[in-house]
Amino acid sequence: MYNTNPAVLISEVGPRDGLQSVQATMSTVHKLRWIDALHASGLREIEVGSFVPAKLLPQMADVADVLRHALGLPGWTVMALVPNLRGAEAALQAGVQKLTVPVSASAAHSLANVRKTREEMVAEVARIVALRNATAPRVQVEVGMSTAFGCTLQGLVPDDDVIWLAAALARAGVDEIGLSDTTGMANPAQVRRLFYKLRAEVGDKTGAAHMHNTRGLGLANCLAAYDVGVRTFDSSLGGLGGCPYAPGASGNVVTEDLVFMFEAMGVATGIDLKKLIAARAPLQAGLPGEPIYGMTPEAGLPKGFMHV
Amino acid sequence: MYNTNPAVLISEVGPRDGLQSVQATMSTVHKLRWIDALHASGLREIEVGSFVPAKLLPQMADVADVLRHALGLPGWTVMALVPNLRGAEAALQAGVQKLTVPVSASAAHSLANVRKTREEMVAEVARIVALRNATAPRVQVEVGMSTAFGCTLQGLVPDDDVIWLAAALARAGVDEIGLSDTTGMANPAQVRRLFYKLRAEVGDKTGAAHMHNTRGLGLANCLAAYDVGVRTFDSSLGGLGGCPYAPGASGNVVTEDLVFMFEAMGVATGIDLKKLIAARAPLQAGLPGEPIYGMTPEAGLPKGFMHV
Repeated sequence: MYNTNPAVLISEVGPRDGLQSVQATMSTVHKLRWIDALHASGLREIEVGSFVPAKLLPQMADVADVLRHALGLPGWTVMALVPNLRGAEAALQAGVQKLTVPVSASAAHSLANVRKTREEMVAEVARIVALRNATAPRVQVEVGMSTAFGCTLQGLVPDDDVIWLAAALARAGVDEIGLSDTTGMANPAQVRRLFYKLRAEVGDKTGAAHMHNTRGLGLANCLAAYDVGVRTFDSSLGGLGGCPYAPGASGNVVTEDLVFMFEAMGVATGIDLKKLIAARAPLQAGLPGEPIYGMTPEAGLPKGFMHV
Repeated sequence: MYNTNPAVLISEVGPRDGLQSVQATMSTVHKLRWIDALHASGLREIEVGSFVPAKLLPQMADVADVLRHALGLPGWTVMALVPNLRGAEAALQAGVQKLTVPVSASAAHSLANVRKTREEMVAEVARIVALRNATAPRVQVEVGMSTAFGCTLQGLVPDDDVIWLAAALARAGVDEIGLSDTTGMANPAQVRRLFYKLRAEVGDKTGAAHMHNTRGLGLANCLAAYDVGVRTFDSSLGGLGGCPYAPGASGNVVTEDLVFMFEAMGVATGIDLKKLIAARAPLQAGLPGEPIYGMTPEAGLPKGFMHV
């Protein structure tokens, strides 16, 4: 059924990025059902939650339980977001397989989002790496560089800032550095240029493309990243989520549409689209009334469609 | 204000493809206001209507009046769709500057849509070209090859059918042959492959990419076409329209999002995005209650955005 030699890795961020962006809190039992359905579709990486204080994000209060459940399902990598060392300690204790740390390329967004300068965040990441090295050397540490393509607060984010920050993070010992279009300002020419520069700077530490569909360019930007060698893509089932701290930002790339694009192109994802679309039901059951998106689920798969 | 050396040509099809796909009929006075607003945005090509019997498409009954008005506005090419020789006679009499004739690549769709085989359509196109040559040699004749990327009736449309048909149309004397994703089944790899093969077959007669957003891939497919040298793109303000004869087909590419993508990439369109977005108001005034789409108009232009 599933392609056993996928060409791209789709990293589902809905249970983290999606759920922490909506007002309602999904109950733990609904989260577990949704994650089971996502696993059944053939996904090989999932971001299950954020290790942050429950009073800041009550939607994530049960993250350790959700993580434990996801770890019991075989054949995928279970990630969690941690904003700082304290979060990393908790996530590592809970048995996380991969950490992702958001670091803003925009100086203004960094201060607004985590009240730290970018340099302070690099130092924090270095402490997280040291903890990982000492206590859980097999755990991967990824940085998702937010506002890499522009910022709603400061506007333009110079390429040089992105590459300078990536180099500093590589020196700090992270395994992967991805670029996030937090604010939906990226365009395909910029995506190609920045990922090309990123690879020139950090080589195989080049990580995921995390694109938003704020202005409709999400898939075009993923295609552009694929064209310059990116092979990991963050997306969210039903397009759930965005960044609540970047005013006007909205709309993760829809996993269903992204998987359809790649499979239709002959690029294997290892994901069964019908089962992926079926995972919308437990999402909707757990978040009644919350709008979800996706053109492929609405239109259906085209006549004659086959997975790679 | 406008870039006087645009790198791509955006061909607005809303007044034809959009209006003939909705149930309501826009009044002539509203059409003229809408066309004025589209012209003011800097568009350089527009498809104003179809020359078809009014009893088949009452939305197009006033096409000659609308055409005459559009011809009075300077600096753009005024097109009309004609399904056959009779339509071409009427359009040429009305003073059209460019004819577009739909010809299906899918044998099944050709019979369902115009009750003619593809070979009969090539013969009809040859008669249209002969009429043009005899009576209005400066008028351009374009074929938009529908279902070039797949068909909801027959499923797969072989590349060889598309290229065979393009070659026959080139021999019949048309000036441009574009490829249309009538059914929203195209993917970027296929778009690159087919336009590459098309150019190899017909050279500079390669025409527009007419993409649909049925499964969310509209802009990614436009990017793919741009990558292999396509420089004319059909789209519809507010994403109005689709093909009423291809079951399940919907969603023209949204002009506003397409223009935003190119301008953000540094590819000049010659179009002022604010004025383009302002042209949504007369569209909505003329079609009250009709849903229109577009991510860029909803999100707004990003901070620091500049036209090329």
